[in-house]
Amino acid sequence: MAVSESSQRESKLFTHRKKYKPTVPKCLRNLATIKFVEEYETSSVANEFELKQIFVNLFGQKLLSVGRSPPTKYKPIRVGMVLSGGPASGGHNVICGLYDALMEMNPKNELIGFLRGPKGLIENNFEIVTGELIDQYRNTGGFDMIGTGRDKIETENQLKSTMQTVMEQNLDGVLIIGGDDSNTNACVVGEYFSQQGCETNIIGIPKTIDGDLQNEEIEISFGFHTATRTYAEMVSNIARDSCSAVKAWHFIKLMGRDASHVTLEVALQTQPNIALISEEIKAEGLMLSDVTDLIADAVEKRANVNKDYGVVLVPEGLLQFIPSLQSLIHALNGLLANDSAHLQEIDALEDMSDKIEYIRQNLGTTHCATFNMLPKEIRRELINERDPHGNVQVSRIPTELLIIRCVEAELKKRKKKGTYNGKFKAHGHFFGYDGRCGFPTNFDAQYCYNLGRVGALLAQNKLNGYMARVHNLGDSPINWGAGAVPLTSMMNMEVRHNKLKPVIKKCLVDVEGSPAFDYFVMNRGDWVVPDNYIYTGPIQFFGPPELVDEPPMIVQLKTNCTYN
Amino acid sequence: MAVSESSQRESKLFTHRKKYKPTVPKCLRNLATIKFVEEYETSSVANEFELKQIFVNLFGQKLLSVGRSPPTKYKPIRVGMVLSGGPASGGHNVICGLYDALMEMNPKNELIGFLRGPKGLIENNFEIVTGELIDQYRNTGGFDMIGTGRDKIETENQLKSTMQTVMEQNLDGVLIIGGDDSNTNACVVGEYFSQQGCETNIIGIPKTIDGDLQNEEIEISFGFHTATRTYAEMVSNIARDSCSAVKAWHFIKLMGRDASHVTLEVALQTQPNIALISEEIKAEGLMLSDVTDLIADAVEKRANVNKDYGVVLVPEGLLQFIPSLQSLIHALNGLLANDSAHLQEIDALEDMSDKIEYIRQNLGTTHCATFNMLPKEIRRELINERDPHGNVQVSRIPTELLIIRCVEAELKKRKKKGTYNGKFKAHGHFFGYDGRCGFPTNFDAQYCYNLGRVGALLAQNKLNGYMARVHNLGDSPINWGAGAVPLTSMMNMEVRHNKLKPVIKKCLVDVEGSPAFDYFVMNRGDWVVPDNYIYTGPIQFFGPPELVDEPPMIVQLKTNCTYN
Repeated sequence: MAVSESSQRESKLFTHRKKYKPTVPKCLRNLATIKFVEEYETSSVANEFELKQIFVNLFGQKLLSVGRSPPTKYKPIRVGMVLSGGPASGGHNVICGLYDALMEMNPKNELIGFLRGPKGLIENNFEIVTGELIDQYRNTGGFDMIGTGRDKIETENQLKSTMQTVMEQNLDGVLIIGGDDSNTNACVVGEYFSQQGCETNIIGIPKTIDGDLQNEEIEISFGFHTATRTYAEMVSNIARDSCSAVKAWHFIKLMGRDASHVTLEVALQTQPNIALISEEIKAEGLMLSDVTDLIADAVEKRANVNKDYGVVLVPEGLLQFIPSLQSLIHALNGLLANDSAHLQEIDALEDMSDKIEYIRQNLGTTHCATFNMLPKEIRRELINERDPHGNVQVSRIPTELLIIRCVEAELKKRKKKGTYNGKFKAHGHFFGYDGRCGFPTNFDAQYCYNLGRVGALLAQNKLNGYMARVHNLGDSPINWGAGAVPLTSMMNMEVRHNKLKPVIKKCLVDVEGSPAFDYFVMNRGDWVVPDNYIYTGPIQFFGPPELVDEPPMIVQLKTNCTYN
Repeated sequence: MAVSESSQRESKLFTHRKKYKPTVPKCLRNLATIKFVEEYETSSVANEFELKQIFVNLFGQKLLSVGRSPPTKYKPIRVGMVLSGGPASGGHNVICGLYDALMEMNPKNELIGFLRGPKGLIENNFEIVTGELIDQYRNTGGFDMIGTGRDKIETENQLKSTMQTVMEQNLDGVLIIGGDDSNTNACVVGEYFSQQGCETNIIGIPKTIDGDLQNEEIEISFGFHTATRTYAEMVSNIARDSCSAVKAWHFIKLMGRDASHVTLEVALQTQPNIALISEEIKAEGLMLSDVTDLIADAVEKRANVNKDYGVVLVPEGLLQFIPSLQSLIHALNGLLANDSAHLQEIDALEDMSDKIEYIRQNLGTTHCATFNMLPKEIRRELINERDPHGNVQVSRIPTELLIIRCVEAELKKRKKKGTYNGKFKAHGHFFGYDGRCGFPTNFDAQYCYNLGRVGALLAQNKLNGYMARVHNLGDSPINWGAGAVPLTSMMNMEVRHNKLKPVIKKCLVDVEGSPAFDYFVMNRGDWVVPDNYIYTGPIQFFGPPELVDEPPMIVQLKTNCTYN
């Protein structure tokens, strides 16, 4: 049974959208004649030595691209898949593409979905995927077909249970549709299976709205485009409100965890007066007071030309990139880690003020000073709301309100000095959950459908430890390329929860020379005082192709887009 | 010069949207042959006696509809217009419809726009509207072509200055594009002009996203549809997130001032688990604890079937409709009114805690108890953030967070009692500013364009004190009807800032038997435990007419929609 019942009434767009047919690139047509071609051997991003020892079987596999061969008659296979982590638009289309490709290769092929994330895989909780089910979810948002979850398959017991599941289910392959953490986990499971002689192949699919799972081979993760286009609609609506009502500044926080890709992409799409990029703030070693000045300067400049309004974009992870705050959060994560001796003592304290006092006493003088500077509400959130790993949940910190308060205080000073003479009224906004489950853009719908197709091919060809790859995304979908990247090639060793672990390297905004960031730096000066807002409007699904099929700006810029 | 510079780069949707041609209903084609036909004499909603004395010249005018006559050769006229109050999508199209109609009636006609709201009219600050300017704003959102403002034309001096402006400008008519307050003000100005022998005619256009400017004649105000469709997109994205991630409740506050029309419309569009309707809560005399129980019951029921997630819609004005809170706000408005003796004393106090203490001492025991119950942050907002009339700004109160905290506390109790055994994690959202300036839906684009057209006809026919009317909106635009409603016919006397004043009666949700509310009550039971969310997706502008031309649900329900 599906995790969520289907609606009795459905919207007109829902009905229409289910009929949309994603384009299949030339290189992915006629699956019977496709073979994988080995390109070059891969290493890892760093720590080759350690990773070789951990991933004895998977390390160093070759990059694959698709080529042609005489038609093959594929034997029937049975494939599983699971959604992992936060939802991203297009997940259903990965499953649809996978299902259609499996049926095309051999109508006897079978597909099962594990329910509510990796836990479903550990506990063999599943649902058989039928054509009827698939047709209810084509080109629609959400992960509700089979649900998702944030559990990991890490302990020996979990790995064993998972192996038991795939053996009982007699699976040839399992697709793990997830972000960097989930794909790291996929690699661990794949290696374990391989070492244990289990022949089920693990295949990764690059999902995340944050855009931090990208590299030379993976041009972008799916869901990023739909999320940023949705946020851009809201941001540009607010920008137009700000220059219509001419009386308020809007501080808009955008989801995206550590990396500022979402904020950068939305800034390129909408041209706000200011967009903060965490990676740049860190690279320049800015303090909270510097960031405050930067914004107050813009408010002052605009007030001088009678504009007491504007739009500021704030990335979700900003506070972590401000050195003094970053080291505080690091210290807090240490204190509050799941295996920290302090945690038990803190949890034992009933009262929040006692908890805060305990933490103060154990933070050390410098961090304690920074901690005391934070508004009470934020201190409370930092302690209360942590993810399953014990990490401070950055998305719960009302960063936009913290920044507003700092700017307010600074402008008060400037007013006294006489340099600023405007009216500062500010509203805070946070967009995040509203962009993860919308109907996927044509770009995401097509990208995902074809990622699923590649996943089917990888399973059919018994390839283990690969991530499906669809590339050349700046071009028209018909010309997109396809292949697969060894998961180990994206890895390095990093400290996680106080332990050195193999992980897929998170991609941050490259402030040293990525095309998107360069474009932003070159142009943002023109957005501060003049109102050069771009009004993107809502995502369109019908109408002229240049309007409905456009890829994300950062893809257009990095692939020298030939699309338009 | 336009208030806001136009963008150097514009979005593809912007370019396409400017080319869209709104449908003109049959009854509004060939303007030269249109005449107004008098229907029946009107009175007022109430207080006929008082209103007759205030509006000596305008009271009792007849309802007008459009009919046909032999072609007229119109003499050239000069018309002004002004945007008043908060932005609403479609404002630019009113101006475009007005401009096109003026040009069609006589190419020598002239149109000027007063800048930044009624103040522009008082100060004769204007811009001449040209075809070139118009073409940059067709079918786009925002009020930035000429800006808007919240000033009123009330004092003798302001009325005199306004008359001076229209005489200097030699205007035959002025369109006031605004909500209930602005149209009330339009009526006051129209009456004043008439009494002074000034021949400029004042014409009102029904604007407001809140939907509280509607009645038997005015089926809906413009901007309501675009705003609710935009909020519905976000709400349904969040609903799909909630049943995908299956781990959080989302409390979504929606703009709309006092009335719950926006929340009701969005609920009909998206079918959330719970939608609070302020008017119903008041009618049933519910306390804050009752509202809390109502939600906690639903959380408990869903937890019993393993659903620790859901969506609750909260109307912006909710707190005012909870009797104990309502009387507190009333008392605060009295204390903080612009002409209150207390206000000066409060303003003189530097420190917030002193202000709070002062208010406590002057509130009286009962109100003081309620005031003390509120979280500190909310008390601060109540005092700090008031509108130009001195009223508490309800939109600044984080009602959604207040409700979350109450529900949290209640569930804690139930957990102890053992009746509730779920996990309650909640996120708050507020959508408001993001829905006022989007590209107008086809419905709003067409409705506004034709309101502008009727406005031009009223000016040309020298009709004073009317609101333009386009009706039969549940039908296809080609069959829409047109006419005009005397502004006085919508009025009654109400206490505003402690004084009895003539005002257009605000329309609240009729819980005694309006089709939209009845439909909601009949169906909402099926939304609490089953996930019957409707995923509306973003507003579409291209594609099949049943998808792109749909009117608001409340219009469909009240007009026995023949559209589909």
